[in-house]
Amino acid sequence: MAVYTDISEDELAKFLSVYDAGNLMSYKGIAEGVENSNFLLHTDKAPYILTLYEKRVDPGDLPFFLGLMQHLADHGLSCPLPVARRDGSLLGELAGRPAALISFLEGMWLRKPEARHCREVGAALAQMHLAGEGFTITRKNALSVSGWRPLWDKSESRADEVEPGLAAEIRAELGFLESHWPSGLPTGVIHADLFPDNVFFLDDHLSGLIDFYFACNDVLAYDLSICLNAWCFEKDWSYNITKGMALIEGYQSVRPLSGAEIDALPVFARGSALRFFLTRLYDWIMTPPGAMVTKKDPKEYLRKLRFHQHVRSAAEYGLEMPVPSMKVTV
Amino acid sequence: MAVYTDISEDELAKFLSVYDAGNLMSYKGIAEGVENSNFLLHTDKAPYILTLYEKRVDPGDLPFFLGLMQHLADHGLSCPLPVARRDGSLLGELAGRPAALISFLEGMWLRKPEARHCREVGAALAQMHLAGEGFTITRKNALSVSGWRPLWDKSESRADEVEPGLAAEIRAELGFLESHWPSGLPTGVIHADLFPDNVFFLDDHLSGLIDFYFACNDVLAYDLSICLNAWCFEKDWSYNITKGMALIEGYQSVRPLSGAEIDALPVFARGSALRFFLTRLYDWIMTPPGAMVTKKDPKEYLRKLRFHQHVRSAAEYGLEMPVPSMKVTV
Repeated sequence: MAVYTDISEDELAKFLSVYDAGNLMSYKGIAEGVENSNFLLHTDKAPYILTLYEKRVDPGDLPFFLGLMQHLADHGLSCPLPVARRDGSLLGELAGRPAALISFLEGMWLRKPEARHCREVGAALAQMHLAGEGFTITRKNALSVSGWRPLWDKSESRADEVEPGLAAEIRAELGFLESHWPSGLPTGVIHADLFPDNVFFLDDHLSGLIDFYFACNDVLAYDLSICLNAWCFEKDWSYNITKGMALIEGYQSVRPLSGAEIDALPVFARGSALRFFLTRLYDWIMTPPGAMVTKKDPKEYLRKLRFHQHVRSAAEYGLEMPVPSMKVTV
Repeated sequence: MAVYTDISEDELAKFLSVYDAGNLMSYKGIAEGVENSNFLLHTDKAPYILTLYEKRVDPGDLPFFLGLMQHLADHGLSCPLPVARRDGSLLGELAGRPAALISFLEGMWLRKPEARHCREVGAALAQMHLAGEGFTITRKNALSVSGWRPLWDKSESRADEVEPGLAAEIRAELGFLESHWPSGLPTGVIHADLFPDNVFFLDDHLSGLIDFYFACNDVLAYDLSICLNAWCFEKDWSYNITKGMALIEGYQSVRPLSGAEIDALPVFARGSALRFFLTRLYDWIMTPPGAMVTKKDPKEYLRKLRFHQHVRSAAEYGLEMPVPSMKVTV
């Protein structure tokens, strides 16, 4: 939760003067997002989100992020829509930072999602994968398998502080994933961070997806494995197969998985567990003591990783495997 | 800026079920207030502010704060209005904390107020002083002259870290104020914290006052002296007499000051400068190094205090003194 940059009414009014977004009535810094400063604006026309991109975001990525939201919305996905300036561009500048005005999406994220919600999340993820087709800008996934070793190199020497023996365990896992990472599977634009706080619900139904600032081009089934990790474990870190089944069924109701994608799910799930483990470990080590931020426990993803290491097939995630069917003719 | 408590959609929906406030569509933690957690809610009826009172607020004070807002709004002041539950009460409970739903006041606070805004602030302060008449609950000002010495006792030993010789200077000032504090002047409900971030403007006119969580019963002219300190100094801590004149004129356009109140202004201004100096000094000393909060510089109020020590009469604040007038008959 963060607002890194304060803005004055004057500069905000000037920023808004090149949009047809109505007259400014109020703006509040909101405690959302960890990379950027976000404000909820009311004008006499509508509510909006104003995002100021802080230094952790590469300005070169902004045409991808904003263009993607526009492309996805144009192709029927419910997501925030960047508002175009009168000159047609999606990006402005405010308080010395790149800034975008984005439509406000009503809805709330679920602190305690249930299986029926996981089903809708799976379907929405598949819809996003299909809607992303034809988007022409590309962005490499810096946090996929080739990016993990450089990240690990920065944390390895202190990993045993989290748990004795951890450095050797992660070294072995990283080696395994680098040599067994599936190739040749369908790729496209993935969300790469579809956690519960990035999915809004309204009246118990999914109302939209937000926060595309980790989106990139990668293997589609890998994105599904991120959702398995993010949605289908309980607070005690146990795997809930009912949720897993619902998530995968929801996904397949929109975009059926191939046999090769299904076979690859356990390795992808190990990979995505390792990916979140590594960034959390890095943040854990690098956050100075006394800093008033909530450090996320890297052990959560260590436990999930160990679970996936014992999974022999996607059936254990709840995926209904094809069985020889008996046709009954009445 | 703070959101200390996260709330789930479920518990929020349950909380709202005893209000006629419409159906919840979204809620965002907002970076406003330092004592409580605040959320901006959208329902299908209106926007609202939801405040969760955290442990620094005495629950025994809440009937005063909420009742005051209701009383002031009923008497024509533009300020947030607590929404009554169906049982008529203004206070509920959410996430184990006392919580209130409050109408959302459109408007923005000014980062760079000018003299014309100070005039409106003065008038609104006087309107509040008049509107507060007849409010039957009372609350003592814990941060008036009798409360300063206990606060000072906690900081005195480290005051010289801020500036050598400071302990002796503040000791002398405290002694002076305790023995020269004016008595017998009109009292009533004062805001006690009417800084720029607590006054909203819309289309360049004042749209309302917020944050009554320091409000209490005290001398009315003392409240005006707080505004002199909060509104009429520039970023370089120099006093702007044009703003001072506008603030006082605005106040007197609604509630003329008596001669005794005018005479007391310089001492009250010293007192209110000392009051904010002391709380800032305390926070400065008590905030651990590395804590990610913005510490406000206590020297700002030290400089203001020294300015007021050299003021001989309220004329130096910009107050127009009565002069023998020449009547010209045309």
